[in-house]
Amino acid sequence: MSSLRVAVVQYSPEFGAKEQNLRRIDSITSSIDADVIVLPELCNTGYFFLDRKEVASEAETGDGRTAQLMRSIAQRRNAIVVAGFAEQAGTSLFNSTLVIVPEDSQNYVYRKIHLFYREQNCFDIGDSGFFVVRDERRDLRLGPMICYDWRFPESARALTLLGADLIACPSNLVTDAWHKVMPARAIENKIYLAVANRAGSEHRAGEELRFKGQSAIYAYNGEALATAAPDKDEVLYADIQPAQTRDKSFNAFNDVLSDRRPEYYVRLCTVDSK
Amino acid sequence: MSSLRVAVVQYSPEFGAKEQNLRRIDSITSSIDADVIVLPELCNTGYFFLDRKEVASEAETGDGRTAQLMRSIAQRRNAIVVAGFAEQAGTSLFNSTLVIVPEDSQNYVYRKIHLFYREQNCFDIGDSGFFVVRDERRDLRLGPMICYDWRFPESARALTLLGADLIACPSNLVTDAWHKVMPARAIENKIYLAVANRAGSEHRAGEELRFKGQSAIYAYNGEALATAAPDKDEVLYADIQPAQTRDKSFNAFNDVLSDRRPEYYVRLCTVDSK
Repeated sequence: MSSLRVAVVQYSPEFGAKEQNLRRIDSITSSIDADVIVLPELCNTGYFFLDRKEVASEAETGDGRTAQLMRSIAQRRNAIVVAGFAEQAGTSLFNSTLVIVPEDSQNYVYRKIHLFYREQNCFDIGDSGFFVVRDERRDLRLGPMICYDWRFPESARALTLLGADLIACPSNLVTDAWHKVMPARAIENKIYLAVANRAGSEHRAGEELRFKGQSAIYAYNGEALATAAPDKDEVLYADIQPAQTRDKSFNAFNDVLSDRRPEYYVRLCTVDSK
Repeated sequence: MSSLRVAVVQYSPEFGAKEQNLRRIDSITSSIDADVIVLPELCNTGYFFLDRKEVASEAETGDGRTAQLMRSIAQRRNAIVVAGFAEQAGTSLFNSTLVIVPEDSQNYVYRKIHLFYREQNCFDIGDSGFFVVRDERRDLRLGPMICYDWRFPESARALTLLGADLIACPSNLVTDAWHKVMPARAIENKIYLAVANRAGSEHRAGEELRFKGQSAIYAYNGEALATAAPDKDEVLYADIQPAQTRDKSFNAFNDVLSDRRPEYYVRLCTVDSK
């Protein structure tokens, strides 16, 4: 069964120093040998925007300067690149992530639907919906989600139902609760997860956000295959066997997808149940 | 804010010895002082049925001998009683749990929808749907689920959307994966969970099932308030503040229910997505 190497880049961008951040990403990734490279959320700009005007001054389209660098990295490293960025699309602003497959000319863009904290003052709710990118050459089905999407089991479940083998999750995590939940996402969906968090902190308007690092790659049984330190830049690696996630059985009787009973889940999709 | 005491009974029924098991339950519960008492799955009959005929010989209606004992316990202990039992309803057989509120004459019965292992040869898929029992006197909204329902985030989510403060989960758990997932169910829903597992083992037809004990009561932040040993009978207690689960916010911006985006979860409720 074919194996793929996943690299998760934990690093600390500097807020508002996009060119410097892009140079650092270019430098860090130049020595990575992997089939998939996952970078943090908003990895080009830093995280702690206070309002839409600030975002608008840094945001790019899905084929802008940052996307061009990510495609260049994807081609040079012969790897799928997943990287969070601030996106402008018309008058909308999204907390988005690129998924770039070197042989595929399309830049796939997932726009985050669950907005954390002051993101609600800065970004629109994503309108891309969940999707899975199928790379036949690497035999990988990759589903992107972003940071706070972790807290909603619906995110990883939707990606699993779309056929994902691996969820790539660019993140800027500032709490510790996710450590108790990401392994559950792997187990309940029988899926791999690669969480690229950032380290460091940002101070804006008298408030500090401290990012918790501890990026991790989880196997489909919930075990961490690799874990980063809380407070320093680091590249994590793990080898995964994507095709093993496609048989969702775990004994002779049970299967985490075919045992579902969607007729009893209707309330989860009822918009007025919010 | 009012506080309720939850008792979880971990004990080891003997397969096929229903009268003896009911006497033991009567004896164990006679000294329990709590507002809610949760017993394991199939606590009257034992677990390891091999076929429908075996179940049919032990199954009862929702107002049968076992339900009558549970109501008697509920009244004597002045407590809500949740207890798993094998149910016969017409020609159907269900792995069910009773929820009995002493002041309420209705016996609520949840019929398990996710069937584990050889249960698939023994029981029908439950048709009750998820529901929450509202006890105004104790100011508690209790949602039942059973054992393997844990693996499907849809179960606890459906109960949360129905307004549950506390999920009571009669169980006969034989794996260890649930330890990594139950805290996630608490966190993602901001809800209490009481898992009554059994200890001991059963041998049938050359196969042994070893039940893992370690019953637990979880707070809505995922912390275990009480945990039992893996291998002995035990009663666990924890005090909970049900009303605290009703505000689903966890900072000034975020709320685990109002941040949901059901318009992007439609696939979860599509029956042909199984």
